[in-house]
Amino acid sequence: MADHLQNIDLSEYPYINRGLEGIVAFSTTKSFIDGAKGELIYSGYNIDTLAENATFEEVCFLLWNDRLPDAGELNELNSRLQAERELPEVVLNYIRNTDKNSEPMAVLRTAVSMLQDFQPADAVDTDHAIAMTAKMPTIIAAFDRVRNGLDVVAPVKKGSTAFNFLYMLNGEEPGTASERTMDLCLVLHAEHGMNASTFTCRAVCSTESEIFSAVTAAIGSLKGPLHGGANTAVMNTLLKLKDDQGEGADPVAFTLSKLEKKEKIMGFGHRVYKVLDPRATHLRKMSKSLSDETGHEYLYNWSEAMVKTMKEEKNIDPNVDFFSATVYYSLGIVPDLYTCIFAMSRISGWTAHFFEQKENNRLIRPRALYVAEKNKPWIPAEKR
Amino acid sequence: MADHLQNIDLSEYPYINRGLEGIVAFSTTKSFIDGAKGELIYSGYNIDTLAENATFEEVCFLLWNDRLPDAGELNELNSRLQAERELPEVVLNYIRNTDKNSEPMAVLRTAVSMLQDFQPADAVDTDHAIAMTAKMPTIIAAFDRVRNGLDVVAPVKKGSTAFNFLYMLNGEEPGTASERTMDLCLVLHAEHGMNASTFTCRAVCSTESEIFSAVTAAIGSLKGPLHGGANTAVMNTLLKLKDDQGEGADPVAFTLSKLEKKEKIMGFGHRVYKVLDPRATHLRKMSKSLSDETGHEYLYNWSEAMVKTMKEEKNIDPNVDFFSATVYYSLGIVPDLYTCIFAMSRISGWTAHFFEQKENNRLIRPRALYVAEKNKPWIPAEKR
Repeated sequence: MADHLQNIDLSEYPYINRGLEGIVAFSTTKSFIDGAKGELIYSGYNIDTLAENATFEEVCFLLWNDRLPDAGELNELNSRLQAERELPEVVLNYIRNTDKNSEPMAVLRTAVSMLQDFQPADAVDTDHAIAMTAKMPTIIAAFDRVRNGLDVVAPVKKGSTAFNFLYMLNGEEPGTASERTMDLCLVLHAEHGMNASTFTCRAVCSTESEIFSAVTAAIGSLKGPLHGGANTAVMNTLLKLKDDQGEGADPVAFTLSKLEKKEKIMGFGHRVYKVLDPRATHLRKMSKSLSDETGHEYLYNWSEAMVKTMKEEKNIDPNVDFFSATVYYSLGIVPDLYTCIFAMSRISGWTAHFFEQKENNRLIRPRALYVAEKNKPWIPAEKR
Repeated sequence: MADHLQNIDLSEYPYINRGLEGIVAFSTTKSFIDGAKGELIYSGYNIDTLAENATFEEVCFLLWNDRLPDAGELNELNSRLQAERELPEVVLNYIRNTDKNSEPMAVLRTAVSMLQDFQPADAVDTDHAIAMTAKMPTIIAAFDRVRNGLDVVAPVKKGSTAFNFLYMLNGEEPGTASERTMDLCLVLHAEHGMNASTFTCRAVCSTESEIFSAVTAAIGSLKGPLHGGANTAVMNTLLKLKDDQGEGADPVAFTLSKLEKKEKIMGFGHRVYKVLDPRATHLRKMSKSLSDETGHEYLYNWSEAMVKTMKEEKNIDPNVDFFSATVYYSLGIVPDLYTCIFAMSRISGWTAHFFEQKENNRLIRPRALYVAEKNKPWIPAEKR
C-alpha cells in the first residue's frame, strides 16, 4: 500500500482502524455488562434472576417492551409464536432444493431474508419480530433434516420454542430436562450489549430500512468466527481430541501443548469480561448434569480440566461459548448448528435494538481517511 | 422511557446517538470526497476522468486493485463477467415462484444471499466478487420480467454489463446511446466513501464473516429511504405531478408549494456535498440528451425548473439521485428498480472495501450507555 500514500503518516492517527473501540455511540435500555464484576443485566433484570426464573418467551417480551409480561400477555405471546411456526412453501422449497453442503448459517440468512416476501401487507414491526422468532427454529431444523436425507418435521402448535425446536430437529418430543436446558440456553444468549451483530442491525435500521434487512445483516455478522462462530470451534476442538486419542485423552497435556505452540484455544477470554462470564456459570452447571445423563461425562471432565489448566497457566476464564458447546453436543446437536441456535435466541435482542434505534434514529455513518493519490491522469488501456 | 432512567442525564453526553458523525474510523484507498469543492476520487482518479473515459468493468478492476487494468487484464475480467452471468436453477426457481408483489430490493437481497450455496468449493473472495457483479443484473431483470408475466430472458455471453442488463430487462438489444448511458450510470454509482451500506459491509467483514454475508447486509442497508431509496422517491414525485396535472404541469408552482408546506423535496441536498455533486453534473448532461431522444423533454424541463427554483429559494443543489431518476425513466426502467441498479453498481465498491477491511481487520464494536434500572426483583407472572 505504501505507493498510494501521499505524505500521510498513519501513526499520527492512532484511533483509526481500531474498530471504534471505546467509542460510546448509543444509549440503550436493553442490556448492561460490567466486565470487571461479571454482571449482565437485560432490561432491568440480572441474568441470574432470569436464568433461574424466566422462559425464553418471557425474555423476548422483556427485551421488546422493557418490562415483564403479565400472565395474559405471556399467554398471548406464546400463542402467537406457536401459530406462526410454519414456513411459506417457497421458503421450504428453497430449503429442500438448495445444495446439501451449504452452511447452515448461510441457509438461515437466505431463508429469513425470504420471509419478508410472504408477510401480510398490514403487518407491523412487532408482527415481523414474532414471525422471525417463531420461524427461525423451523428453518434450522428443516435444513438439518433435509441435508441428512430425512423428512422435514412440521412444527407443533403447542409448547415452548425450545420444546418445538428439539421436536422438529429429532422427530420426537424432548424430555423435560432437555427442554429446560434448551430454554435456558436461549435465555442466556438473547442479548449482550453492543456486540457486532447488534451494532450491524442498528446500522441497517439507521437508513430507515426495514427489520428483515436488519436481521439478515445481523445473521451475516454473527456468522463470523470472531463473533458467533466460537462455540462450533470449541466443539470441533474437543471432537478432534476424541478422534485422535479416544475418550482416554489427556486434556491437560493437550492444553499445555497448544499453549506452548502459542495456538489459540477457542472458548477462553472475552473482550468485555475480565472475570468469569456469568452465563458460563449457568452453562457449566447445565453441562455437568447433562453429561451425567447422556454418558458424555468425559467431555465435561475434559472441559473442567481445560478450564483449570487455563486458569493456572494463563489466568484466563472460559466464556459463554466454552460450555454451550458441550451442552448442545449433549443435547444431540451437531456442531455446525450451534451458531444458528445462537441466532435463534439473539433474534430477540436484535429486534429489541431495532425498535430502540427506530424510535430515536440517526443515520450511522462514520468517516474514513483517504490515504492514496488524487487526480491521476488517464492513460488508455493499451498503453498501461 | 423516562421511568427507566436512573439519574442519567443524557444531555451530559451530547455525542451519543449521533450516528458516529464526524468520527474517523478507517483509512482507505478506495475513494475521497471533498464536499466543499465538489470533488470525488476513486482510487486515484477523479470522477470526471472516469466518467469521460472508463467503463464500469474498468472501474471494478480499479476499485478492487487500486490501479487500472492493462488491455489483457481488462479483456480477462470482461470474459469472466460474461461467463458468470447465468443463475443457479434454485435461485431462478425462487425468483419465479416468490410473491409477485415483493420488493425488488428484498428479492435481490435474498437471491444474492442464496448465491453462496452454489459457489465452487475452491472459489476465493475475488471469484465471489466477480460472480455477484455478474449475476446481480440477471437477478434484477429476471424478477422484473417474472412479476410482469413475461418470460425470463437468459443473459448473453457478450458485451458490457450495461448492454446485457438492458437486453435482459427489455428482451431486445439496446442502442449504443442507451448502453453508454447505462454504463455511465454504473460508473457514477460505484463508490462513495464511508456511506452507510459500505460501512455495514465492513462491519460484517470485521467478524471474519464472508463476502456474501457482507454484501447481503449492504444491500439491506442501501434499501433504506435515507440511503439508496431516494431516486425512486424523486421519480415517484415527478410521476405524481404528471398524473395530477399532465405534461403541462407547473413545476415551479409545485416546488414553491412544497417549500411553503415545509415538505421534503427528494433529490436535493447532501450530508457531504455543500456544492453541486460532481456526479449530478454528468447525469444532468445525460438526462438532457436522453430526454430529447425519448420524447420525455417535459421531464427534463421540469427537473431544470425545480433545480433553478430550489437554488433561488433555498440555495440547495440537486444530488446524484435527482437526475439519475429521469435518466433511468428515459431508459424505460420503472422507478422501483432504481435502488437495485444502484446496488448492481455499488457491488464494486462494497467488495473493494471488504478486501481492504479483511487485509487490516479489527472487530467493529462501539459501546452503548445503559440508561435503565439494574437488578430488579423477580415477580411471578400471575402477580405482575
